[in-house]
Amino acid sequence: MDLKTLEDRLPAGTVVTDPDILAGYRQDRALDPAAGTPLALVRPQTTAEVSAVLRWASQHGVPVVPRGAGTGLSGGATAQDGALLLSTERMRAITIDPVTRTAVTQPGLLNAEVKRAAAAEGLWYPPDPSSFEICSIGGNAATNAGGLCCVKYGVTTDYILGLEVVLADGTVVRLGGPRLKDSAGLSLTKLFVGSEGTLGVITELTLRLLPAQPPQATVVASFPTVESAGAAILAVTGQLRPSMLEFMDAVAIGAVEDELRMGLDRSAAALLVARSDAPGEFAAAEAAVIEAACTEAGATEVFRTLDPEEGEAFCAARRFAIPAVERKGPLLLEDVGVPLPRLTELVTGIAEIARRRDVLVSVIAHAGDGNTHPLIVHDPNDPDETARANQAFGEIMDLAIALGGTITGEHGVGRLKKAWLPDQLGPDVMALTQRIKDALDPAGILNPGAVL
Amino acid sequence: MDLKTLEDRLPAGTVVTDPDILAGYRQDRALDPAAGTPLALVRPQTTAEVSAVLRWASQHGVPVVPRGAGTGLSGGATAQDGALLLSTERMRAITIDPVTRTAVTQPGLLNAEVKRAAAAEGLWYPPDPSSFEICSIGGNAATNAGGLCCVKYGVTTDYILGLEVVLADGTVVRLGGPRLKDSAGLSLTKLFVGSEGTLGVITELTLRLLPAQPPQATVVASFPTVESAGAAILAVTGQLRPSMLEFMDAVAIGAVEDELRMGLDRSAAALLVARSDAPGEFAAAEAAVIEAACTEAGATEVFRTLDPEEGEAFCAARRFAIPAVERKGPLLLEDVGVPLPRLTELVTGIAEIARRRDVLVSVIAHAGDGNTHPLIVHDPNDPDETARANQAFGEIMDLAIALGGTITGEHGVGRLKKAWLPDQLGPDVMALTQRIKDALDPAGILNPGAVL
Repeated sequence: MDLKTLEDRLPAGTVVTDPDILAGYRQDRALDPAAGTPLALVRPQTTAEVSAVLRWASQHGVPVVPRGAGTGLSGGATAQDGALLLSTERMRAITIDPVTRTAVTQPGLLNAEVKRAAAAEGLWYPPDPSSFEICSIGGNAATNAGGLCCVKYGVTTDYILGLEVVLADGTVVRLGGPRLKDSAGLSLTKLFVGSEGTLGVITELTLRLLPAQPPQATVVASFPTVESAGAAILAVTGQLRPSMLEFMDAVAIGAVEDELRMGLDRSAAALLVARSDAPGEFAAAEAAVIEAACTEAGATEVFRTLDPEEGEAFCAARRFAIPAVERKGPLLLEDVGVPLPRLTELVTGIAEIARRRDVLVSVIAHAGDGNTHPLIVHDPNDPDETARANQAFGEIMDLAIALGGTITGEHGVGRLKKAWLPDQLGPDVMALTQRIKDALDPAGILNPGAVL
Repeated sequence: MDLKTLEDRLPAGTVVTDPDILAGYRQDRALDPAAGTPLALVRPQTTAEVSAVLRWASQHGVPVVPRGAGTGLSGGATAQDGALLLSTERMRAITIDPVTRTAVTQPGLLNAEVKRAAAAEGLWYPPDPSSFEICSIGGNAATNAGGLCCVKYGVTTDYILGLEVVLADGTVVRLGGPRLKDSAGLSLTKLFVGSEGTLGVITELTLRLLPAQPPQATVVASFPTVESAGAAILAVTGQLRPSMLEFMDAVAIGAVEDELRMGLDRSAAALLVARSDAPGEFAAAEAAVIEAACTEAGATEVFRTLDPEEGEAFCAARRFAIPAVERKGPLLLEDVGVPLPRLTELVTGIAEIARRRDVLVSVIAHAGDGNTHPLIVHDPNDPDETARANQAFGEIMDLAIALGGTITGEHGVGRLKKAWLPDQLGPDVMALTQRIKDALDPAGILNPGAVL
């Protein structure tokens, strides 16, 4: 494929073919070994440039794999042979309007940068993936990313009021805008959220912001069994809306303690970290309710603090769980979720799968909304263990589906989980999905092989 | 068309052809004079029956106009010649799960009934159209309805976690479910919210509920000018998130006072009713902030109360504004919205249009989110006045679009506003909408003539 006609339409330096640079863009954090050899990397800075890329790609039948910061965990940005990798990393403008309490941002900004820009105006962008310091806001929208505060504050789609999207043929559409209410026409904005680059490329986002979050009270509780932690989770969420309710199993506790030496109870089967951001003294009151619920459910140790720094240290410990467990070996990272009453069944079922397949699986979870991240440790140089890890990976998704859950709560389907999507959605919803895909991208050039 | 084959597939009494009964279903509250003569009314009780109706309609090429409680204000449920009217009024089952804090409901239940079922478990379904006592939850989803609390709590789509939908050919799909987080596949659930019966018929909804709303503090303020009220609105929303922030103009104040004799200030140009549901004494503190903002903006009179009944009386007065103004004559009811900083321009521009067209227009508004309901009073027996009212109707939408706004914040496009939809969305978004419509309803049998 002659790239000259593409290069002619774009500013110098936008199209990159240096294999050394391309190598760094072939995979996202899923490290999909099936990554192909891309034709080129394009790094546009404007919507017009994205449109030019897609027009060219459409005309030449060249597939396009969009990517944000490359932190995806499901292989949604895995390079395909002969495809253009379209990175939004240089699209980094943002403006905050404190009056409408909205942000208008290009997709390449990191989630943490959006949060900082909002905070400079006394505002808050809630969604907070654990990777918030390295993941892009465009990628968050493309996967409908979640995070730790979602148990109270909802997910990315709840904060997206408008999008600018470039369609497969290069057409630029503006959907929604800085209006909390808008019933004019189909809800196209929401359709593109979570579409993982298969329907269009997001080039601008209008985000709803909230006033700054009040200081949080924090409760940390250790449990002798997964069941007792599960009972505490239901007792907490049945009484109030925590601003965070996180779970770590024994493996994660040990791994984090190995690294951070915080004095976590290594003998515990489970640890919960819960927070309240109710205003004023209500945070302390809610923390007391959480503490009582944990104690009543059988917690062996409960720690409660109003000190934001101390509380943040425990949140950081929870966020550090994935890298800490990763020290034990490369991970297959799951993202299964179930309706809250089935959470204990899911966690104990995962342990059973781990035993049967003889692999180490650590479970951490956004427990308050039933979204778990089983981390399957395996040695990729050991073919037998890798095979068993892959078997466990599939069986955990099968289990989540059997419990009325989802194969992905917040990471997206990408390429790693698409084999399980039909089992969750069923043939009729898959057919419906395909009809929409075909209507919007008839030639199938947008992120082929992802989701569908 | 022979209805025998349809009747054979459904329980006795489901298909109604009695012209006297049909007459009551030909229009919704928009009273569209262009309503046609339907073939029949069908009142299914189950999803399987809805599926049978659509399968039959598809096979026979018969259009289907779905309707909830018939309270729509945009003609989304206007009968079409030869169409089946599919009323969901008999689909009234609901279950509440306090553990996952969700409701699973059929579409025919009224919004108020959903609220009551949730309240019986100590829970709250926030969206609150002014018509909440007579509008159906299925219709709320079909129009992405709003209400008074949306300024803080968002709109219907923010509370819909899952839907069961019957597609044009009778296929039943289940989308989403009782999971706060689910990134598996396209966001199809959200696509059907606000689709006004043009993509499928909603037969079941999974709703997210919140803990019961705390008691609210209420502030009522009178202003000498629209501009001073507008300044107060921005000053309030810039400092906190009120749980309600409503606007009434002089005409509405007078009309409500005529009926209710509450002692509203008839000399005022505008009235604001604002509430705070912050917990405990924070409600009073927020009410004090609101009061100060109003006073500083030039309010001539401010009343503040913590008494829930007294506060509710002012909300009821605001909700009564539409029927009160309606005593002056039949209304053309608008639903235009703008980004908040343009609200004063919109309201003063509407007054200018009313002057120019010599018609009475009263403006009430969900001011906190920039969503206004201009009420155009006219005598349908006066052709000249009716023509001027219709001119004003269109010019108000033109103005909203020119101010970066929307022709409908919460009522939907239906048939009355569809001529203006292309002006708001532009040709590319209209084409995108049509592609999705064609993909899901290729024969165009679902609510033909609505939206598109």
